[in-house]
Parts: sequence; structure tokens; C-alpha cells
Amino acid sequence: MPFSCEFRVAWVDTDALGIVHFSNYFRYFERAEQEFYLGARQSQEEVMEKLSVSFPRVSAKCDYKSPLHSGDMIRVSLFLDSMGRSSITIRFTIVQKQTETLAAEGLVTIVCVDRDRWKPVEIPVEVRNIFMQLS
Amino acid sequence: MPFSCEFRVAWVDTDALGIVHFSNYFRYFERAEQEFYLGARQSQEEVMEKLSVSFPRVSAKCDYKSPLHSGDMIRVSLFLDSMGRSSITIRFTIVQKQTETLAAEGLVTIVCVDRDRWKPVEIPVEVRNIFMQLS
Amino acid sequence: MPFSCEFRVAWVDTDALGIVHFSNYFRYFERAEQEFYLGARQSQEEVMEKLSVSFPRVSAKCDYKSPLHSGDMIRVSLFLDSMGRSSITIRFTIVQKQTETLAAEGLVTIVCVDRDRWKPVEIPVEVRNIFMQLS
Amino acid sequence: MPFSCEFRVAWVDTDALGIVHFSNYFRYFERAEQEFYLGARQSQEEVMEKLSVSFPRVSAKCDYKSPLHSGDMIRVSLFLDSMGRSSITIRFTIVQKQTETLAAEGLVTIVCVDRDRWKPVEIPVEVRNIFMQLS
Repeated sequence: MPFSCEFRVAWVDTDALGIVHFSNYFRYFERAEQEFYLGARQSQEEVMEKLSVSFPRVSAKCDYKSPLHSGDMIRVSLFLDSMGRSSITIRFTIVQKQTETLAAEGLVTIVCVDRDRWKPVEIPVEVRNIFMQLS
Repeated sequence: MPFSCEFRVAWVDTDALGIVHFSNYFRYFERAEQEFYLGARQSQEEVMEKLSVSFPRVSAKCDYKSPLHSGDMIRVSLFLDSMGRSSITIRFTIVQKQTETLAAEGLVTIVCVDRDRWKPVEIPVEVRNIFMQLS
Repeated sequence: MPFSCEFRVAWVDTDALGIVHFSNYFRYFERAEQEFYLGARQSQEEVMEKLSVSFPRVSAKCDYKSPLHSGDMIRVSLFLDSMGRSSITIRFTIVQKQTETLAAEGLVTIVCVDRDRWKPVEIPVEVRNIFMQLS
Repeated sequence: MPFSCEFRVAWVDTDALGIVHFSNYFRYFERAEQEFYLGARQSQEEVMEKLSVSFPRVSAKCDYKSPLHSGDMIRVSLFLDSMGRSSITIRFTIVQKQTETLAAEGLVTIVCVDRDRWKPVEIPVEVRNIFMQLS
């Protein structure tokens, strides 16, 4: 089941074209991911600390469909795209709420790495279970 | 009466010290200001558009009391500090909600300028009334 | 011929993991693009203003190879990947200078739109010529 | 003797008013500070690591004099305002280079804290000497 949450587009997120800067969509993705983790009662930081792993991004992609403006309410949804031994790909959508317009969709691949050696390791079952909720 | 709203501290707001970067407190101030305007059913942009004015900051100050971390819930409150002919000074506080600790307080002075000449003009009564709600 | 320029990684670009936040790589891409335009003695804004066009991103992708840290000097290079009737895809690489390590590579597709209708239009020859310098 | 360095204003630093967002001036201050430290052949991080101290901001203030735009070259200068037992106040100016217009000036107070207890401690002589170069 996908996870969704809602945010307001902040003024600072816009640029001189009057629309949200393309780099900020990736920040919206991450804010939704953060809410998802907290909703699972396991903050990303806690899990990382306890198991001495980190989840750096290895790839991030966004397709922009329709511009967003300051003050817009957006709904960001997370879907499990695929889960491998050490990596997880999450699909995101951003919908402008007032118009129900798809603003963007994206894919982010995170990899589970050992904090000390910064090398891929198998995803801990605690994390695997959290992401299985999205399928 | 002060206006308050609540936000989650995003991961991207932190820096390599593990705490929220000092510049982001000003963004939290502005996000609360934006919510205040929207709550007054008059978005900042609408008023600015209609009356052909803008409200650039002429001064911004923040005193940092206690660090904030990713995932913290914060309450940002706005108070009317003073209102002159063309300028308004708003006082802000940021409280970390779980601990009710004062994280920061600040002052932001905005000035009402004519959009074409970018010179100070008298604050329109529509805007004055909005800010009087804070006193 | 690719275009390259160099930047210092700022402290604010890092997050609590101690490395550059993944969204900031897209900002480095854009800063290199901006320098490229200025080097062509045609700022992006000037061209857009004169011809009443804008170049919103329709897609942006980054593959992360090696983390970057505050204070690192990076070299960002632009390559022409492809140019169609109304869209241009630019390939970017980011190299950490001290170690000559590839930190990231990415693709950004921009589309030329009419400012009033926000619909794709043919890329003006002025812009086409600028980008041909990259091939 | 003040320390100065030059930066280009990035497109992402602007907002929908077409000018640099007020929070970004604090980031320019910090980038100049970072260059100053590196010029002193002692990166902020190295000193902090070695002596187990950090330099969080306790106060930051900026007065905005004239707007900045994407592509502007700016000169950011640091002056030693005052140095106490555990705190240092730095004055900053930002000048738009093409016009030699003062865009902003500010004050940032940093305090030297013990990393473990996060309490003010005496500024180490290594750091004191670095900042004395600014007087």
C-alpha cells in the first residue's frame, strides 16, 4: 500500500521563473520518506544508528509534468518499485492537491552500506519489513 | 494574539554537525509567515499582485538558543513587534515541541515597496489589518 | 567540446551524514550550466527575455558514485547528449579534484517553451548555436 | 585586514520575486568564512576535529540594502568586530561587483563549545590567531 503525506510549497522553494526549482522535488521526495519512516515508528536515524548502516542514494530521477507554485498543497506518495539484496528503489509521485494534477514522478534508489567501510551490505530485516508495507 | 504553526524539521535542513543549519531558521520564520497570510485568507502573493507592492526584508536577526535535529517537531510563533508607516517588525520564536525548549527567537523587518520603483510606500490598509491580528 | 568549471563544496550543502545532500548535485549541474551560458556571452535570462521563452527541466537524473564533503573542490563538466526540435539533453559529470574521483554523473533534459502558453516550441537558433559548442 | 572573496549568485538562490532570497545572504557569509579558514591553511573542520570543539552560531543578523539577481558577481568581506573569551563576532559586507553597490551587511556571532558537553569554552589559541588576521 503506498504511503502519502501532504506539504505546503514554501516561498523559498521557488525561483525567479516563479515556479518551484527542479532540485526541490527531490527534497519533497525525501520529506515523504522521512514521514514514512517516522510513521513506522522507526526513524531513519535510529535504525541507522542501531545497525551501523546508512542509506545513501545511488540514483535519483525526476520527470517534471506540471509546474508548482508557492502556497500549493502537494501530496507526495511513495510506492515500492523493487527491492534487491542491498538496494531499494522507491517510486514517488507529487500531485498538486487543488487541481489533482500530477506535478512530477520520480525514482530514487538507496543502497544499504556499512557505515565504517561505506560498502553495500544486505538490507537488515528491520528495514526490509518497513519497506514491505509499501507493496 | 500570536499566530503559531507546526513543522517537521527535514533531514536536508541539517548539516555535517548533525544539527539544523543556522540559515534555515529564517526559512522556518518565513514558512510560518506564509501560513499566517493564508490563514488570513489573503495570500501574500495575492495582496502583492493586487496592490502592486512587495514586502522585501530590510533586516533579519536570529538568536540561537538550542540546536534542532532532523525529525524534530517545531512550533513557530509570530508576534507583532512594531508597525510603522511603511515597515513592520515581526518577532518569531521557535520551540522544540517534544521538550518545549526554546530553540531560537528572531526579528524580521519587512518594508512595503512599490513594485515598479522599489521605494517604500505606506502599508495598505488590507495588509495593516492582517498584521493587527497579531497584536 | 565539453564545458567545465570548478566550485568549492559549501558547508551548508552537507547533511547530518557529513556528506553532500543528494539534491545539491542538481544545483551544481545548474551552476555549471549558468557559467556556460555566461561564457557564451548570452545569459540564460537575456535569451529567455528577448525571445520570450523559458527552459524548464522535463527530466533530471543523477547517479551517485562517491560522496563529496565540505571544502572539496569539484569540477563540473557539461556534454551535449542530444538535441531535438524542442528539447536538449545535457550530460554532466562531477569530479572531486584532489583525488580525480568521479563523484556523480547525470542527465538533464530541458525543453524550450513559449512563456505565455508554457507549450514546447522550436529551439531558437541562438540557443541551438550555444549548445552546439558542447558537441 | 579584512578578508574578501568573490562568488557568482546562482539561479537557485533567487525566489519568485526575481531576487535572491533573504536567507541565502547568510549562506554567502558562511561561504566567505569557509574560504577564509581554508586560506589560513586550517579548515574549520580540521581545527574542530583536533580540538574537539565546534563553533555554532549564537546570533546572526543581516541588513538588506539592495537586491541581488541571478548571475551577479558579489564580493563578500569579513571584518573582526569583536573577540571575547569564548565568542567571536564577525562583520560581513556583500557588494555587487559590477555596480560596487553595497547589497547587505551583517553580524554573525559564533561561540566556541566543547563538542561533548556543548558548553562554551575558551577559544583555542589556534583559532584566536586565525581571527586576529582580520583585525
